[in-house]
Amino acid sequence: MNVTVLAGGVGGAKLAHGFALCQPEIDLTVIVNTGDDFDHFGLRICPDLDTVCYTLAGLANPQTGWGRKDETYEVLRCVGELGGPTWFRLGDKDLATHLERTRRLSEGQRLSDVVTAFCSTWGIKARVLPMSDDPVRTMVDTREYGWLDFQNYFVRHACRPTIQKIAFEGIEQALPAAGVLEALEDSDLIVIAPSNPWVSIQPILSVNGIASMIQSQKAVAVSPIIQGQTLKGPAAKMYREMGIEPSPVAVAQHYSTLLWGLVMDELDRGFESTLMSSGIMVLSTQTIMQNEQDRLSLAREILTFSQDRNPNQMPRREF
Amino acid sequence: MNVTVLAGGVGGAKLAHGFALCQPEIDLTVIVNTGDDFDHFGLRICPDLDTVCYTLAGLANPQTGWGRKDETYEVLRCVGELGGPTWFRLGDKDLATHLERTRRLSEGQRLSDVVTAFCSTWGIKARVLPMSDDPVRTMVDTREYGWLDFQNYFVRHACRPTIQKIAFEGIEQALPAAGVLEALEDSDLIVIAPSNPWVSIQPILSVNGIASMIQSQKAVAVSPIIQGQTLKGPAAKMYREMGIEPSPVAVAQHYSTLLWGLVMDELDRGFESTLMSSGIMVLSTQTIMQNEQDRLSLAREILTFSQDRNPNQMPRREF
Repeated sequence: MNVTVLAGGVGGAKLAHGFALCQPEIDLTVIVNTGDDFDHFGLRICPDLDTVCYTLAGLANPQTGWGRKDETYEVLRCVGELGGPTWFRLGDKDLATHLERTRRLSEGQRLSDVVTAFCSTWGIKARVLPMSDDPVRTMVDTREYGWLDFQNYFVRHACRPTIQKIAFEGIEQALPAAGVLEALEDSDLIVIAPSNPWVSIQPILSVNGIASMIQSQKAVAVSPIIQGQTLKGPAAKMYREMGIEPSPVAVAQHYSTLLWGLVMDELDRGFESTLMSSGIMVLSTQTIMQNEQDRLSLAREILTFSQDRNPNQMPRREF
Repeated sequence: MNVTVLAGGVGGAKLAHGFALCQPEIDLTVIVNTGDDFDHFGLRICPDLDTVCYTLAGLANPQTGWGRKDETYEVLRCVGELGGPTWFRLGDKDLATHLERTRRLSEGQRLSDVVTAFCSTWGIKARVLPMSDDPVRTMVDTREYGWLDFQNYFVRHACRPTIQKIAFEGIEQALPAAGVLEALEDSDLIVIAPSNPWVSIQPILSVNGIASMIQSQKAVAVSPIIQGQTLKGPAAKMYREMGIEPSPVAVAQHYSTLLWGLVMDELDRGFESTLMSSGIMVLSTQTIMQNEQDRLSLAREILTFSQDRNPNQMPRREF
């Protein structure tokens, strides 16, 4: 059974890890947002790709969800001594990823090739694909500062500015990375992870051909909104700033005709009837992933849920 | 009294440090080779500038002469895990210099401005200037591999290939960095440090206007050749590969009409008469700098030696 997960950073990485723990019963592909990639100190930094890879490899910092565990910060400390910017917390181990990725890209390798090589080194069995090998840059138009690139908004300004508009620079020219459309086409189950719909999932869906492929296959989304809030990140704040009340219903409307089903937290069970009356299948369950067992349980529940839609496509094993 | 030192890496840095220890009685400018600068992992690396600055700041690794003391190598260890190149030994503290330099250059700052800022942070009182803000790349044509960029030859191949030719890419367009010609013009003493004449000093002398300015002022050179050998680096090997017997005489002939004097090791005293008969002033002394005291002593001896040439330009203090 082929499962493809669309993921941004920490939340998406956790659910992708849950599905990875279901291997080898399933064949897993993770398509990752690269809209918040940026260049810093001359290095190409891909925050979501790294978070997904570190998480799948068991290398992630369990406290933050991003960055590496047992990390040191000697380089950044010395950058700070030189008066350089330290708002983006680059650890020493993490820096090695950026250095070697930058070197390989400058040699002409595609980002997807670099990711594949790193995954192999790190013992990752899932196939991890950037949404595109072409540069896409998420920009947010803020009331306070005008247009900011995403990391500037997200990390440096800690998501405080009020968003008025979001744009994905380069998206018109961006083609899906090799294997992306094929993975979606061959999927028995496409899962939109509980990542930020505005800035983690929307860039992926905006790459040429991806939304229409999902449209024809249909996906299940996991709501990142729980009781009008998010566990992490500015998704709920963004809904409000866009004039939308954040809820699982808003998430379902966001993805609209791409979905056959929505997974939401059991705390939001009150929205079940509204959602079901719109013709969507709904699973209300515990969606907060506090540990590895939670990740695995949620992935298994989604696999079982998808069996309700397509009883014949499930593997023999009972999840 | 204004002293200007032309320096490459470790040997030049040590003598520059000796003169720095004579401050504030003298005003010191160090003009540093940038011909072996290169880009690695997307970062601009300036080995000679960093060696000079680390040495002047007391931050240099006393064992190697290059790199920083109390250094860690966590980033490079992880780069190695990813299959990346580890032949250039980038320490964590050293990497911070390259990151912040690359960032400032990409912002449009000149290399000389970046160096000035770093020197200020590191408490360096001497004025350290790159020979040029324009890129110059030393290339060596080797019998075994054809043309190699300098770090490839010097570090990766450990100077083993046989040199046939040396070229400085970009030298025709390179202008002296701001302050370089002025420092030389205002110098009471110009010292060519015991750096490699072929690949550390020659690039500096090849920048437009520098050799002719020194030609009119005249300099004293310290021979890096001692008993046909060097303490470090391939200078002696290069002389042989170029068909020249390495000796203080060869060094004096190398710099030719730029010199009023030559400082050589007392072990080479036998060459004194040959050199003096060519009309050059000669100082034979202990030139091997094993500790800070040796650096200071050599600098003081050169200051006293220069008094023999220009008795009126010395500061009152007795060296």
